[in-house]
Amino acid sequence: MKLAIILGNLGNTNDRFLSSGYKDQPTKEEMIRRAAAIEGVEGVELVGSWDITTETVDQVGALLVRNSLKCVSIIPDHFAQKRWGSGAFSSKDPSIRAQAVDETAKMAEAAMKLGCDLINLWPGQDGYDYPLQADYRQERLWMEEGLRSLCKSFPRVRFSLEYKPKEPRTHSYMARCGDTLLLAQRVAMPNVGVTIDTGHSFVAGENVAEAAVMLAMAGEKLFHMHFNDNYRFWDDDMIVGSVHFVEFVELLFWLREIGYKGWYSMDQYPYREEAQGALRESIEFLKAIDRVLDEKSVAEIRELVKTGDAVKSTRWVRTRFFS
Amino acid sequence: MKLAIILGNLGNTNDRFLSSGYKDQPTKEEMIRRAAAIEGVEGVELVGSWDITTETVDQVGALLVRNSLKCVSIIPDHFAQKRWGSGAFSSKDPSIRAQAVDETAKMAEAAMKLGCDLINLWPGQDGYDYPLQADYRQERLWMEEGLRSLCKSFPRVRFSLEYKPKEPRTHSYMARCGDTLLLAQRVAMPNVGVTIDTGHSFVAGENVAEAAVMLAMAGEKLFHMHFNDNYRFWDDDMIVGSVHFVEFVELLFWLREIGYKGWYSMDQYPYREEAQGALRESIEFLKAIDRVLDEKSVAEIRELVKTGDAVKSTRWVRTRFFS
Amino acid sequence: MKLAIILGNLGNTNDRFLSSGYKDQPTKEEMIRRAAAIEGVEGVELVGSWDITTETVDQVGALLVRNSLKCVSIIPDHFAQKRWGSGAFSSKDPSIRAQAVDETAKMAEAAMKLGCDLINLWPGQDGYDYPLQADYRQERLWMEEGLRSLCKSFPRVRFSLEYKPKEPRTHSYMARCGDTLLLAQRVAMPNVGVTIDTGHSFVAGENVAEAAVMLAMAGEKLFHMHFNDNYRFWDDDMIVGSVHFVEFVELLFWLREIGYKGWYSMDQYPYREEAQGALRESIEFLKAIDRVLDEKSVAEIRELVKTGDAVKSTRWVRTRFFS
Amino acid sequence: MKLAIILGNLGNTNDRFLSSGYKDQPTKEEMIRRAAAIEGVEGVELVGSWDITTETVDQVGALLVRNSLKCVSIIPDHFAQKRWGSGAFSSKDPSIRAQAVDETAKMAEAAMKLGCDLINLWPGQDGYDYPLQADYRQERLWMEEGLRSLCKSFPRVRFSLEYKPKEPRTHSYMARCGDTLLLAQRVAMPNVGVTIDTGHSFVAGENVAEAAVMLAMAGEKLFHMHFNDNYRFWDDDMIVGSVHFVEFVELLFWLREIGYKGWYSMDQYPYREEAQGALRESIEFLKAIDRVLDEKSVAEIRELVKTGDAVKSTRWVRTRFFS
Repeated sequence: MKLAIILGNLGNTNDRFLSSGYKDQPTKEEMIRRAAAIEGVEGVELVGSWDITTETVDQVGALLVRNSLKCVSIIPDHFAQKRWGSGAFSSKDPSIRAQAVDETAKMAEAAMKLGCDLINLWPGQDGYDYPLQADYRQERLWMEEGLRSLCKSFPRVRFSLEYKPKEPRTHSYMARCGDTLLLAQRVAMPNVGVTIDTGHSFVAGENVAEAAVMLAMAGEKLFHMHFNDNYRFWDDDMIVGSVHFVEFVELLFWLREIGYKGWYSMDQYPYREEAQGALRESIEFLKAIDRVLDEKSVAEIRELVKTGDAVKSTRWVRTRFFS
Repeated sequence: MKLAIILGNLGNTNDRFLSSGYKDQPTKEEMIRRAAAIEGVEGVELVGSWDITTETVDQVGALLVRNSLKCVSIIPDHFAQKRWGSGAFSSKDPSIRAQAVDETAKMAEAAMKLGCDLINLWPGQDGYDYPLQADYRQERLWMEEGLRSLCKSFPRVRFSLEYKPKEPRTHSYMARCGDTLLLAQRVAMPNVGVTIDTGHSFVAGENVAEAAVMLAMAGEKLFHMHFNDNYRFWDDDMIVGSVHFVEFVELLFWLREIGYKGWYSMDQYPYREEAQGALRESIEFLKAIDRVLDEKSVAEIRELVKTGDAVKSTRWVRTRFFS
Repeated sequence: MKLAIILGNLGNTNDRFLSSGYKDQPTKEEMIRRAAAIEGVEGVELVGSWDITTETVDQVGALLVRNSLKCVSIIPDHFAQKRWGSGAFSSKDPSIRAQAVDETAKMAEAAMKLGCDLINLWPGQDGYDYPLQADYRQERLWMEEGLRSLCKSFPRVRFSLEYKPKEPRTHSYMARCGDTLLLAQRVAMPNVGVTIDTGHSFVAGENVAEAAVMLAMAGEKLFHMHFNDNYRFWDDDMIVGSVHFVEFVELLFWLREIGYKGWYSMDQYPYREEAQGALRESIEFLKAIDRVLDEKSVAEIRELVKTGDAVKSTRWVRTRFFS
Repeated sequence: MKLAIILGNLGNTNDRFLSSGYKDQPTKEEMIRRAAAIEGVEGVELVGSWDITTETVDQVGALLVRNSLKCVSIIPDHFAQKRWGSGAFSSKDPSIRAQAVDETAKMAEAAMKLGCDLINLWPGQDGYDYPLQADYRQERLWMEEGLRSLCKSFPRVRFSLEYKPKEPRTHSYMARCGDTLLLAQRVAMPNVGVTIDTGHSFVAGENVAEAAVMLAMAGEKLFHMHFNDNYRFWDDDMIVGSVHFVEFVELLFWLREIGYKGWYSMDQYPYREEAQGALRESIEFLKAIDRVLDEKSVAEIRELVKTGDAVKSTRWVRTRFFS
C-alpha cells in the first residue's frame, strides 16, 4: 500500500454553522511537516486555491521535497469560489465552463511541474438542487466536452473523476460509480478514469469492493482511492475504520485481486479531532487489515467468495480477527 | 401514453409475515377481466410461473384477445422458485445458470406467440447478501454471458433489464441505472436495453428523470417503464402519486423530450387495497399530469430547465397545478 | 396561519466548501425591510450572535417596529462559536455548560424586552460523532439540568426544543420527536415544549403530522413550527413544497385538528436562490393548501382518516388539487 | 450473558416473491433439538400461531423441558393472520381490537404455564401505509387502552413493546425507542417496558447503546434484547456482527453499565443460510466481544467516554481487537 493524505485534512475545517471553523489554521509549512511525520505517509494531495496555485507551485514543491513527500495528485478547485456556485463544467454560463477547463489546465501544468501525473477531479458544484432546474441532457454533454478537451490537451496526465451522490448540491452529475464510468467511457480517452472515495460510495448505497471490481473490469479504470468512514447517510469524513470494518477487509482484498497499483490516500474532515492523530489512526487501521491479508488469508477468501456460504465467511472474519 | 398494468397486481399479495397473503386469489380470467375494465388500460404484463407457462400460452392469449388486451411484456420467473434462491444468471451452479437462460428462452417464445416483442428481465435473486460472499468479477461475467446468449438467440425480441438496488437480496447485480446500462453495453447487442421502475429508482437515490435521460443519451436504451410510488427507502409499490408529485411531473416531461415511445405500465403491490381501484388511481394521476403537459407547458418547462432558477420552477409548478 | 420567517434566511449562506458563502451579506436593516415586504409575513425569528446580542436589542427592536414586524422567537447561539464546538448544554467542560445557560438567559431577557415569550432552542453541537465518545447517561442529565434551570429562572418564557437527528454532529441529543418530548417531560416544567422543523422530521424518518399529534396528546407540547423541504436524507432547507406535497396537506390538516395556535415560520437556506423569492414561494405554497382546507375539505378528511381506505384518500387528494 | 434464540429462526423463511420459502420446514421437535444443540443457548422465544397455541402449550413445554431449554418469552401473533392485516390493537374494527387483546391474554396464560413471565409484543400490523389513511390520535389511544388492560389483567407478566420503524406497514405506531417509551409511560403500569431489536434500532437511525441508556434512565424500562444485523436501511435480520462491529462493542459495554439483567436473544431470518450455523455465529461473535470486555477494558472505556477523544476511542478499539 502506497499511503498518502490530502494535505487540507491537517488544516482548519468549517461547516455552515461555524464558518470560522472549529480550529486554527496552521501554516502550509507546518501542515506539510505534520504530514511527513505520520509513519507510512509517502505523499500528499493538494487542493487548488487552498494548497496550491500557479504562483506557489515552486514554493510548495520545494516544501514537499524538503519533507521527502511526493505530490500524489492535485485536486483543482471547482467548489470553493463563488464563481463555481452554480456549476463549473456544466454551468449554464459558457464563460464559467471555459474557466473550469482553464483552471484545470493550470493545475495539470502545476502537477507536471511537480512530477505528478494525476489530476483528481471533484467538480462538486456540477449538479442541481431542485426538480425542473436542470437540462440534464445538455449539461451532461457540457461535462463530457470539458473533460474530453482536457484529456486531449494533456495526454500524459491522468484525469480521475471522483464521484459523490450529493453535497454541496442535492444531486451531483458524477453521482455513482456506474454513472461516472459511463461518463468516462463517453469521454473516450485513455487518460480518463474514476476515483473511489469510500465514504462517497457508502452514501451511494454501493458495495465499495464491487464498485472497484466494476472499474477494473472496464479496463483498469480505477485510477485512485480516497479513504474515510461514515454512517452511510452522509459524507461524514471520519477516521477509517471508526464505523465500518468488514467492508474495508473486503475492499482491501479486492484491490489486491484486481491488481490496483495506485495510492491509498486518506481524505478526512477531522472537525473536532486532532488531525494528525485522526489520520494516523486511519493508516494504522488499514495496516492492521493489510497484515492479516497475507497469502494464506487471500487464498482462503478466494475460496470463500467462490463458495458463497455466509456462515463460513462470517466465521472466517471472526476467527481471523477477533480470536 | 400507452397504458398497461402487470396482471399480478390484481391478485393476492403476501409478505414474509403473512405468507398466505392479505387477500383471496381471483381466477386468471377474472383478473384479466378486471384489467380490461380499467379505463385507459390497453395491455398487460405477464409474470412467468404466476401468469403464464409454456403450457398455458394459448389459453392466456385467448383470454387477452377476448378482453382486447395486448401482451406488453413477459417477465420470466427468476425469483419465485426455490431453485433460483441463490441466483439465476449468476448462480454458482452452472446447471442453474443454464436453467435461467432456458426459462427465459421459453418465455421469449411464448411472447412471440402472443405477438409481443418485449421480455422484461428482473432477476431479483442475482446478487448477494453478505460481505465476502460473492465473486463479483466472475458472477458479473456470468450475467453478461447469459444475457448475450439470449440476445443472440432471439434477435427479434427486445430484452429489457429492470434494475433494483435490493430485495430479495441485500445487494442486486442490476442495482442502479448506470450499472445496468454498463451491463447492457457489455452485452453489446442492439436488442438489450433497460427498464426503469420509478420506485426502484427512488430507492437507488436517483432522479428518475435524469436516469431516463441517461438511457436516451446512450442510444434509445430506455426500453420500458414501470410506475409505482414509495417513501424512497424501500420498494413499497404504492399507488403512483400517493407520495411523490413533482418528480412525476418532471419525469413525464422528460419522457416526452427524449421521445420515449414505450409503455407506461403500472407495477404495484396493493397488499391491503382493492387492487383495481389502486391501479385506476395511478392511471388517473398520470393522466392528470399529462393533461397539464400541453404544448405551452412543455415550452415553459424547456425554458425553466435552461434558466435553472429554482424559485421560478417552484412557482411554475404551484401556479400551474394548485391555483 | 400566522406567518413568519427566520431573518437569517435573507442573508448570506455558506457551506464547508465555500466558507465565504454563495452570496453577499445585506445589512440587517435591509434584511428586515425585505422580510416585511413578503406578503403575509407578520414576524421574524432572530438568531443570537448573527442577528441579535445583548448590545443590539434596542436597535433591532426599533427596526422591527418600524417595519411592523413582531419578534416571534429568539434562537440563542449554541452552534456558531468555537466554544460550543464540542457541545453546549452537554459539554464535558462545566464552564461551557454554564456559558450555555448564561447565553440562553441573556437571550430570554432580550426576548422579553422585545415583547416575545418564545426561546427556540437548537443546541446543534450537543451530541457526538464517534462510537465510544460520549457518556450518554451523564450528558443527557446535564442537558436536563441546564434546561430545567432556565425554565425555573424564566417562568414567563416558553422554551421550545427543536430536534434534529444530526448535523453538525453525526448524532444529536435532541434527535427525534419522541426523544425530545421525553426530555421535555424529564425537565418537568410547564414552560418547556418542542419545535417541529418539517425538514428535520423528514430526515428522522417521521410522519410529520403524526409527530405533531404526539406532541398535542402530551398536553399541547407543540410550541412552534419551522417549515422547509428536503429529499428526506439531509436537512437541505429548501423551498416548502418544492419536493413534498401530500405530507404538507396532511400536516396542515392535523395542525388544525389539534388546535395549534403558534406560528408557521419559514426556516430555509437558499444557498443559490434569491432569498426573498424563495421565502415567498414557501408561503404561497402553504397558502394554496390552506385555501383548499376549508370546512368541507376538513370534514371530508376526517371521514377519510376514519375509513382508512388508501384508494379513497389518494383519489380525494387528486380530485381536490389536480382536477 | 443469558443467551437465547427465537425458535422460528431455525425454520423455513419466505418473502413476498417466494411464498413457499427458501428451505424446508423441520418439525417443531427437530427445531427445539437444534436450538438446544447450539452451545450457550439456554432458552427460546416462541411465536404464537407458528410455535405455540393454547392447544399445544403442554406439548411444547414438555419438549423444552426434555431439551433443558427455558421459555424466554412468547411473541403473540398479531401479524401472521389475515384478520390482523389492517391492524390489531389499533384496528378500526372494535372486534379486531378485542381479538388482539384476547389473543395476547391467551399467550400470557400460556407463558405462565411455562414458567415464563415475559410477553414480547410486536404488533407489526399496527401502523399505516398511506398519507391521510390513519387517525393518529384515536388509533394511538386504542393502542394504549389495549396494552393497559393487558397489564392490569396480568400483573405478574411483563409486557415488552418491541419497536420497529416499518414493515409490514410503511409506518408503525411503535416505531422508535423514544415513541415507544412514551407509549409505555402513557400505559402507566409497572409491568410494561420496551424491547430493543438491534436491527430495528439501526433502521430507526438510532445509536443502539444510547437507546438502551434512555430506557434505563426511565427506570429500568429495557425489558428485553433481540440481536441481529443489517445494512441500516432495512430489517435484513442477518448474522450478528456480519456487518456492524464497533456498535456491538459499545452496546455490550452499556448493557453492563446500566445493569441489564435480561436475555440476549437472537432474532434472525437466515433465508438462504444453514440456520443453526447462522445462529451459532451470532452467539460466538457476541461472546468474542464479551471476552474482551473484562474489568480492565470496562474501566478503560469508562475513561474514554468521559474524555470524548475520538482518536483515542478509535485507537482503543483497534489495539484491543485487531493487534
